[in-house]
Amino acid sequence: MGNFTCETDAVFPGSNSYLKAGRHNHPEGTVLDIGGIKIGGNTFVIMAGPCAVESEIQLLTTARAVRERGANILRGGAFKPRSSPYSFQGLEEEGLKLLRKARIEYGIPVITEVMDTRQVEMVCKYADILQIGSRNMQNFPLLKEAGQCRKPVLLKRGMNATLDELLLASEYILDGGNEEVMLCERGIRSFETSYRNTMDLNAIPVLKRLTHLPVIVDPSHGTGHAWMVPYLAKAALAVGADGLLVEVHYDPLNAMCDGPQSLSIEQFGSLINELKILSCALGKDLIVPEISFI
Amino acid sequence: MGNFTCETDAVFPGSNSYLKAGRHNHPEGTVLDIGGIKIGGNTFVIMAGPCAVESEIQLLTTARAVRERGANILRGGAFKPRSSPYSFQGLEEEGLKLLRKARIEYGIPVITEVMDTRQVEMVCKYADILQIGSRNMQNFPLLKEAGQCRKPVLLKRGMNATLDELLLASEYILDGGNEEVMLCERGIRSFETSYRNTMDLNAIPVLKRLTHLPVIVDPSHGTGHAWMVPYLAKAALAVGADGLLVEVHYDPLNAMCDGPQSLSIEQFGSLINELKILSCALGKDLIVPEISFI
Amino acid sequence: MGNFTCETDAVFPGSNSYLKAGRHNHPEGTVLDIGGIKIGGNTFVIMAGPCAVESEIQLLTTARAVRERGANILRGGAFKPRSSPYSFQGLEEEGLKLLRKARIEYGIPVITEVMDTRQVEMVCKYADILQIGSRNMQNFPLLKEAGQCRKPVLLKRGMNATLDELLLASEYILDGGNEEVMLCERGIRSFETSYRNTMDLNAIPVLKRLTHLPVIVDPSHGTGHAWMVPYLAKAALAVGADGLLVEVHYDPLNAMCDGPQSLSIEQFGSLINELKILSCALGKDLIVPEISFI
Amino acid sequence: MGNFTCETDAVFPGSNSYLKAGRHNHPEGTVLDIGGIKIGGNTFVIMAGPCAVESEIQLLTTARAVRERGANILRGGAFKPRSSPYSFQGLEEEGLKLLRKARIEYGIPVITEVMDTRQVEMVCKYADILQIGSRNMQNFPLLKEAGQCRKPVLLKRGMNATLDELLLASEYILDGGNEEVMLCERGIRSFETSYRNTMDLNAIPVLKRLTHLPVIVDPSHGTGHAWMVPYLAKAALAVGADGLLVEVHYDPLNAMCDGPQSLSIEQFGSLINELKILSCALGKDLIVPEISFI
Repeated sequence: MGNFTCETDAVFPGSNSYLKAGRHNHPEGTVLDIGGIKIGGNTFVIMAGPCAVESEIQLLTTARAVRERGANILRGGAFKPRSSPYSFQGLEEEGLKLLRKARIEYGIPVITEVMDTRQVEMVCKYADILQIGSRNMQNFPLLKEAGQCRKPVLLKRGMNATLDELLLASEYILDGGNEEVMLCERGIRSFETSYRNTMDLNAIPVLKRLTHLPVIVDPSHGTGHAWMVPYLAKAALAVGADGLLVEVHYDPLNAMCDGPQSLSIEQFGSLINELKILSCALGKDLIVPEISFI
Repeated sequence: MGNFTCETDAVFPGSNSYLKAGRHNHPEGTVLDIGGIKIGGNTFVIMAGPCAVESEIQLLTTARAVRERGANILRGGAFKPRSSPYSFQGLEEEGLKLLRKARIEYGIPVITEVMDTRQVEMVCKYADILQIGSRNMQNFPLLKEAGQCRKPVLLKRGMNATLDELLLASEYILDGGNEEVMLCERGIRSFETSYRNTMDLNAIPVLKRLTHLPVIVDPSHGTGHAWMVPYLAKAALAVGADGLLVEVHYDPLNAMCDGPQSLSIEQFGSLINELKILSCALGKDLIVPEISFI
Repeated sequence: MGNFTCETDAVFPGSNSYLKAGRHNHPEGTVLDIGGIKIGGNTFVIMAGPCAVESEIQLLTTARAVRERGANILRGGAFKPRSSPYSFQGLEEEGLKLLRKARIEYGIPVITEVMDTRQVEMVCKYADILQIGSRNMQNFPLLKEAGQCRKPVLLKRGMNATLDELLLASEYILDGGNEEVMLCERGIRSFETSYRNTMDLNAIPVLKRLTHLPVIVDPSHGTGHAWMVPYLAKAALAVGADGLLVEVHYDPLNAMCDGPQSLSIEQFGSLINELKILSCALGKDLIVPEISFI
Repeated sequence: MGNFTCETDAVFPGSNSYLKAGRHNHPEGTVLDIGGIKIGGNTFVIMAGPCAVESEIQLLTTARAVRERGANILRGGAFKPRSSPYSFQGLEEEGLKLLRKARIEYGIPVITEVMDTRQVEMVCKYADILQIGSRNMQNFPLLKEAGQCRKPVLLKRGMNATLDELLLASEYILDGGNEEVMLCERGIRSFETSYRNTMDLNAIPVLKRLTHLPVIVDPSHGTGHAWMVPYLAKAALAVGADGLLVEVHYDPLNAMCDGPQSLSIEQFGSLINELKILSCALGKDLIVPEISFI
């Protein structure tokens, strides 16, 4: 984390309340291992895929394309938190089955969201990583349940959550006995209306200093506009994040959910090329997996 | 709602998406009936009690005192959403039993929070009103579950939720078939640090215009300071709210939770006296229940 | 300010830095006297008029109408701070002359905005009260210049200013030797887009406790919608403010500036009637001036 | 700006109101020339120096050191906007003279803040670039005055200003006839308290798309902590900014102003080395000036 004067105590006088998440008790950064893929340490990991699992062709086409272009992990939502009850709510278990199929077919681990304590067991059967979304960052029963399971968890920052609250939320999972947790900055809500959310990249160095957990950035929700994503993705790499969670769709204009913020396959490919050059200059490892499924 | 020029469409071009919560389909305001106590219409209802149920003596003493001074409904949390896993998490079912005891003893209906889909059935057995807290406003599985039960629900606005999101969240409950919903403004998160939250009283007339559901104000969380509560409680009455949800403790200095924002019994009594005078001037009914339990 | 436990030190540990604005050095509230009209103490003062001075007929018609219905002070902008250079910038000195004419004709003191250090002398010649707007709350040279003049100053809170910053800004004026200062809450900027600003009524009791200066509320800018103004005006009275600054136009639909948030004459008259009843119940004096100009 | 789908109209339906700042009327980005130093185009410019000019030895020592390590332009405040009237207000004209001395001695152009319309003429005599600070972004008389002068202007975004308001503010300067304007993102005010401000890097690509003006980032105010500055500086480069404005002090612990966010000389040197490598990878020119003053 560089050799600048340490101000941790000034930043959070109460940072010793992060009994399990705090870096003070765990000076080495945690490195997760997802079937051979490292998250944390010197690696910059790429998780990519559609917002929602919509159909077999949509998921498998996108999965293959992102895998070929450098994604390490496939994202895709089977349970979708939607503001309105009248919006598409996800394919549920059917979607989970498609994710499993994509994993088997293309040898890529999958991350997917869990929204309800009663879903945790089922989602664990299909997913390699559980995602807890912004709206559930302080759904404490869900955090406790995630603490009981044996799958890594990606915990997204709430859209108005302080870093203190995010770290305490992670503490619920860790305290339950699950040590495989990573955090995710995905934009906060501000007064500015030209983007869906306001990416808070200040959070990355502060989190990296306060906690040993890996820190991922989601520039898709952090901006809400596909054309902005590559700029913020590069900034996330430069600011010290451990990876990206990014929405890619094989046909963004016809996506059932979050099309405007989804990269096309081509845009994703270009982004990976830019990130490769940048990670070199920064001394970070962006590891494009070998392809064995052709 | 007065006779001023209507700007509803300008306020929310999409307000016709509130299929069940929208006032356009339901011009008369909804009036709930909780064992004879009215919420909505011309009534200003008082829900008061401790943040958390701590013990029999704490709950019963406070319950009796607030009932004697004019509370219509008793509040008290058995399941507590706490930022840290190391803070007091509530007495759980034991707390629910104490609430039931207070209701029987003093003839006062009770409202208590539910945090997990798996708790809904149990909480319904004990409570007269289910409360869904700010952190769970977009916990959609919980909203759906609440839509299935046959108890009134008080839905709190998330601390960064827009009114649009609040109304759509209520739509989840209504769409499930539960028509007994009320909304609650409890302060939003802003940059100002002199109070715990920033009470947003603009929300009251806008909500009253957009929806037929009753709108309650929680000045305890909305300020975080007991001395501020009476000022904002009076403002809530003047701005057109249908009632208050207010924290009262028989010994605030020794409360296990939210002591600094809890009124003492005496402060609560004074507040009720002030509200009586004000409600008269405003033509609202603040109905102090008769006491039959002495 | 009621008899609740005092938490001032907890609210602002540095409140002793308000050397001249702080209540600790000046326990009695300041009462300004504007040609016989009191601001502060037990009085609830009404300042009303158009956003901008547009023409002689517009100003005089509105001035007469608000004076007849109970306004104590006439507002009207001659220098207008507009986001775009291509919007109407105000009538400047011509507008000031019209304000003077209205004052002479109807015996009503006038308040008007000053935006530039170089305008202070000129505005002082015409106005009874100088207004420093939100965008200039931290225009320190302007505050210093206002500290040198001998006219009362109404200082508006910046739309993202903390109360600490507002009080320190008032300190610039007071420290220059001008003791006649009042503060004005006019809404802060939040994430909520259904209103122009978010009225922060929490600020009123906190300011009243921290400072001896009168505190005024502007519900026109605080809401941005004329139909909301009466609700928030009543809440401002109930929460303990010392008066209102409210926009009234004789023809809101054709106003050159801020029409949507301007009350019509009739709406203003109804509001005053409501406020009279409410002020009675609250023990505040709303003094409708006698009319001598017919 | 890359070859992603253009959504400008969706971002700002009113973007055609930026008559002079809008990129639609001026597709080529503006490149300023400050005595041979380019701002805009492919260059990444470094402006560095102390928050405030404090003394001859402080300014000249820091100026020489930053010039040797790669700064293109020297920053330093002679007029300081301070929240409290009791804080150090700057050396005023004495400070301007020291800036001129540093420029002559080390051949480095200087940027300094102007706060008052009456200071513009004087500051123009000494400075190469006028800075208009966050608190004055909507000080319209000052913007108009800056539009009349013939010096480049760096306009900082207000801490709660939308990009729309920032662009309209720049329009005041441009409309006055001064075409040499650059914008500066310096952090917005959010609910998060672990940093002084929240750097909004989303603003950079959006501004670059909407306007032809160069866009600078100030990571010192954007974070408030010296140790965070290098992380956000690299992110600013990666996200597409045209340069940095960064605070450097030869003795941060004893700075009269903003010490905690000022880099030491050594930290600044390390940062430049990191930025050189990164700018190479990004195809941007970071031009370290030759040294001729030894």
